[in-house]
Amino acid sequence: MTAPGRPTPYRVRVSEITETRPGWLSREDLESARERLPLVYVDAVPVRVDERGVVVSVGLLLRAMPDGSISRAPVSGRVLYGERIRDALMRHLEKDLGPMALPRVPAAPQPFTVVEYFPDPEVSGFHDPRQHAVSLAYVVPVSGDCVPSTDALDLQWMTPDEAASDAVALEMTGGQDRLLRLALAHVGVLP
Amino acid sequence: MTAPGRPTPYRVRVSEITETRPGWLSREDLESARERLPLVYVDAVPVRVDERGVVVSVGLLLRAMPDGSISRAPVSGRVLYGERIRDALMRHLEKDLGPMALPRVPAAPQPFTVVEYFPDPEVSGFHDPRQHAVSLAYVVPVSGDCVPSTDALDLQWMTPDEAASDAVALEMTGGQDRLLRLALAHVGVLP
Amino acid sequence: MTAPGRPTPYRVRVSEITETRPGWLSREDLESARERLPLVYVDAVPVRVDERGVVVSVGLLLRAMPDGSISRAPVSGRVLYGERIRDALMRHLEKDLGPMALPRVPAAPQPFTVVEYFPDPEVSGFHDPRQHAVSLAYVVPVSGDCVPSTDALDLQWMTPDEAASDAVALEMTGGQDRLLRLALAHVGVLP
Amino acid sequence: MTAPGRPTPYRVRVSEITETRPGWLSREDLESARERLPLVYVDAVPVRVDERGVVVSVGLLLRAMPDGSISRAPVSGRVLYGERIRDALMRHLEKDLGPMALPRVPAAPQPFTVVEYFPDPEVSGFHDPRQHAVSLAYVVPVSGDCVPSTDALDLQWMTPDEAASDAVALEMTGGQDRLLRLALAHVGVLP
Repeated sequence: MTAPGRPTPYRVRVSEITETRPGWLSREDLESARERLPLVYVDAVPVRVDERGVVVSVGLLLRAMPDGSISRAPVSGRVLYGERIRDALMRHLEKDLGPMALPRVPAAPQPFTVVEYFPDPEVSGFHDPRQHAVSLAYVVPVSGDCVPSTDALDLQWMTPDEAASDAVALEMTGGQDRLLRLALAHVGVLP
Repeated sequence: MTAPGRPTPYRVRVSEITETRPGWLSREDLESARERLPLVYVDAVPVRVDERGVVVSVGLLLRAMPDGSISRAPVSGRVLYGERIRDALMRHLEKDLGPMALPRVPAAPQPFTVVEYFPDPEVSGFHDPRQHAVSLAYVVPVSGDCVPSTDALDLQWMTPDEAASDAVALEMTGGQDRLLRLALAHVGVLP
Repeated sequence: MTAPGRPTPYRVRVSEITETRPGWLSREDLESARERLPLVYVDAVPVRVDERGVVVSVGLLLRAMPDGSISRAPVSGRVLYGERIRDALMRHLEKDLGPMALPRVPAAPQPFTVVEYFPDPEVSGFHDPRQHAVSLAYVVPVSGDCVPSTDALDLQWMTPDEAASDAVALEMTGGQDRLLRLALAHVGVLP
Repeated sequence: MTAPGRPTPYRVRVSEITETRPGWLSREDLESARERLPLVYVDAVPVRVDERGVVVSVGLLLRAMPDGSISRAPVSGRVLYGERIRDALMRHLEKDLGPMALPRVPAAPQPFTVVEYFPDPEVSGFHDPRQHAVSLAYVVPVSGDCVPSTDALDLQWMTPDEAASDAVALEMTGGQDRLLRLALAHVGVLP
């Protein structure tokens, strides 16, 4: 049985390609809506914590980005019609880190920040050439085994210091390096 | 001059009735999108604070609600395509409290909570019969003169104790009484 | 091996009775300091969460309180000289819930609220007849087996609705019922 | 008339030099307590915001620090026995920025982070050679005229980019550069 409003992961993944469920969007309609409405997104920065809750490493995916680059990025994705925020978080975390990642989505709905992505990179410094997206950003401890999905080329764990380095920032686009530093600041491990 | 991505208040208010700016939605298209995409909203609980920052009173509008009732409610409204969150907050606060309210939108983009409104009142307890909306909720001190707009029938200031009372809760619908209590809790004045 | 600045649990518990470690306080000196300095405390509201992070139950201890009453209360205690906040949280959670509770102290140091306890119950509504204490309050999911310590007479798990009820509020003193409602609000489950 | 528990600013300032009010500490006793109890502090990062709430500049004092250096630093100070957090914030802001600074202490008691200063610089990266201090950190918009007090040698306003620069970081000690970056991250203006 599924919780109210929680689409099953399989249907959702298919739905992003060829949508048949009533009330959801075809690819064409999504393209059209993207030009006229801000979309709701979630960003999740996966972390490993020690037994006292201290963040000891940060996970970054290597993936093809909306701007055509191959970049490092946190877990990110759209919230579907009828879907709860925490179900969208679970779905995208499972999709990108595999079904055994055991993410611990925070109990509080309050995100640590809100990221506003715009097609114009000048508006907020966060850039998505496809759309205006308003993204709720969370730090999510994962305790299980992570296997990057077929969408992601790689998953790399690094220390907070490495994650905040200029070298890693250069491998990120669209302002995701800044999002990562905001996350590190929130959990008190920004160098 | 206007900040990047900031629509002028006048254009925005017209746009909600007859939309002509390219990239925004006609009334029909908005109806259609509402059935298929979560919309981005903001909720703002206007408060008066003393010189030490303590919340001494809370403002509630009396207005026609999406469910057809006449209810007490905080300031609330949609974020437009291309609009920054804080510009949407300013726009809705000015629209509902008048141009002299002098709202102090918080410096931090982090909302105190995220409210998920669904057409089905059972999903989250927050209900909007028109749409699935994801709303970023803020407490906003106002220091100027507030005059409820023509959309609102009245604006009433009450103490935190009154605002959290059962009597006031009965005058609110869609879970807005709960939103109000979450706001009072965040600023430490929930009785 | 112990992390820097982390006292071992055993030493700490002894230290609260007869302090011999240099730099810590004897019982007499603590009494004296309590009359002249605000003390640093932590409050931890233990919760059970489901696999999506939703709080499904809240744990309350039954214990002898500073005011002499037998009351329901969250986990609470002093931060020692040289001790990190998260180590104080772990120590008090282990002391009150037993060594198998497996608390997940949040990664972020930001508390959901700060509670100011005063000997005068009128100052803030939070009351501790012994002292002025500034307490950082956290919601802490626990995933293991909880066994109330000898200090606590009982540990009871209840739903968020029960925890926020008037009946349970009547069993709490010093403003702890209010702290509990603030915690429920923060995690979005205040009724 | 003064709010309950609020010491008048004048008495408080005198009290830090020669303490006569019953229940407060003499200089000798404070020295002694500093070796045995964590002290409660507040850190306040003063900022200027535009009319939409965006942080446009950050204020840093130039002052003699506990470690003997002349360094840039935010407003910081001790919470006294019987004093509310927000009164301590007001008192230190007035002391360091002058009586016309018009600080807007946040309505919510939740700090954006908690900073743990230790005599040993290795414990947390935040260092105070005099004491173990637990400091609640807030970003505080000021709208009036700021005049650095006699304690401070200078007050300089700089853009968020300048404040986060390596050059400014080199002028700060005890981890205050890191605290400043955490504040900039919280308000979304960390470069």
